[in-house]
Amino acid sequence: MAKIRSKSFWSKYQIAWRSKKSLVCVGLDSDLSLLPQVVRKDANPMYTFNKAIIEATLPYAAAYKPNLAFYLAAGVKGLEALKLTIEAIPADVPVILDCKVGDIGNTMDAYLKAFFDEMGCDAITINPLMGRDVIKIMLNDEKNFAFALTLTSNLSAKEFLLGKELYKDIAAWVKGFDARKVGAVVGATHPNHLEQMRKLLPEQLFLIPGIGAQGGDLQAVLDNAIKSYNEPNILINSSRGIIFKDSSAKFAESAGKEAEKLRDEIRQGLE
Amino acid sequence: MAKIRSKSFWSKYQIAWRSKKSLVCVGLDSDLSLLPQVVRKDANPMYTFNKAIIEATLPYAAAYKPNLAFYLAAGVKGLEALKLTIEAIPADVPVILDCKVGDIGNTMDAYLKAFFDEMGCDAITINPLMGRDVIKIMLNDEKNFAFALTLTSNLSAKEFLLGKELYKDIAAWVKGFDARKVGAVVGATHPNHLEQMRKLLPEQLFLIPGIGAQGGDLQAVLDNAIKSYNEPNILINSSRGIIFKDSSAKFAESAGKEAEKLRDEIRQGLE
Repeated sequence: MAKIRSKSFWSKYQIAWRSKKSLVCVGLDSDLSLLPQVVRKDANPMYTFNKAIIEATLPYAAAYKPNLAFYLAAGVKGLEALKLTIEAIPADVPVILDCKVGDIGNTMDAYLKAFFDEMGCDAITINPLMGRDVIKIMLNDEKNFAFALTLTSNLSAKEFLLGKELYKDIAAWVKGFDARKVGAVVGATHPNHLEQMRKLLPEQLFLIPGIGAQGGDLQAVLDNAIKSYNEPNILINSSRGIIFKDSSAKFAESAGKEAEKLRDEIRQGLE
Repeated sequence: MAKIRSKSFWSKYQIAWRSKKSLVCVGLDSDLSLLPQVVRKDANPMYTFNKAIIEATLPYAAAYKPNLAFYLAAGVKGLEALKLTIEAIPADVPVILDCKVGDIGNTMDAYLKAFFDEMGCDAITINPLMGRDVIKIMLNDEKNFAFALTLTSNLSAKEFLLGKELYKDIAAWVKGFDARKVGAVVGATHPNHLEQMRKLLPEQLFLIPGIGAQGGDLQAVLDNAIKSYNEPNILINSSRGIIFKDSSAKFAESAGKEAEKLRDEIRQGLE
């Protein structure tokens, strides 16, 4: 049985923002080899870990973002953990699967079936390289949402995305879709690029990784990416900085504190 | 236990070509909903189906290419089927996982662990949008091989790959790597593009989908993509045209005949 999805991603995002005044996306990069000792003897350590993290961070989390790679790396048990994790996230809180898929035709149909129907995600990250064929099937279901990779913060983003200024073309492409259906992944390590992206895409929701472990400056992100406090249109993701802050038996409590701290830093930065 | 990989993808490709004189890649797009009735009551229908297809097509197959999407769409049992399928392919025959991943850092590490270590694939398809960071970790293991999406044959390829002539930049990028480690996915529906791609990448191995169901012209592909008969440097993929040719109890026998027919058509086209 897959999780029942009664609301759209967009509705869930609005509810989470209004009820929690949080823009924190908790990245569930729950690498099996990095889990605390205290969960390792469990029947499914990744799930036990995630469940505790979700319970502790829920008051501060506007969204959760499990990363497909870490679950596949743990094989069949990892995929079981992913599905159980998504089921453990309350129905009003949006779940974004970080999978960066970008395929077409019956292959993309199969990915959508896997991620939205089988697993019960609300949104996915997509790779737009192959163009509109990647996304057109998703647009048929108003509940689904896609974050298109637009400008990433890795070093070799300079080869195509920056070097060929492809991010501008992708931004124009993203702008062609309903902002309640399609947003953009925008890296946080180049605040001036973030400012430019916001000018290109005033309405779109940005999923911003790169805070914490990847070294982005939070205040610069807020100054450049926020449209208005009433309608901030961003989600700031932190993965390792929240979930792996503490490897002791108190890992979940520490994760809760880190999520709260990031929520508060963002609130202060918005003032 | 994962499959033991004693040889590199490149060695396996050379062995398959020399021993079978085949350039046929059998695409295992084994969509659960399309499987013949005769396997549907089995404990794991996707695996039963694939095992029969592999046994029937093995004399004619230079490689197999399971497509991750169809296995994920069937959930945990699908992932089990994928792993069992890869184990069922003899050790000398290369397995290419069509996953089109393109991530970086610890996420890409996790995908490589999943696909090469956990599942035992020999090669994967990758999306190069994020640049060299996607591929650099793979290059550390001489056994691994990546086919980079370079020019696809879908309609909206005209948006970025063709429209922005990104395929030329990606081809130049592919050329910067060892041809025994990195090849290109090149769609078959534009023979003139295929000719251009071969000029840009004289040494690289091309994985060519789009024969059969997607309507590419085989002779035009061979005329434009082949370097020399002694060193043809292509794999021609057919999925639905082979595996779903016949939905009766004789599905495997029919798949074997289709694979043999395609192998023979390619041989004749090379003369």
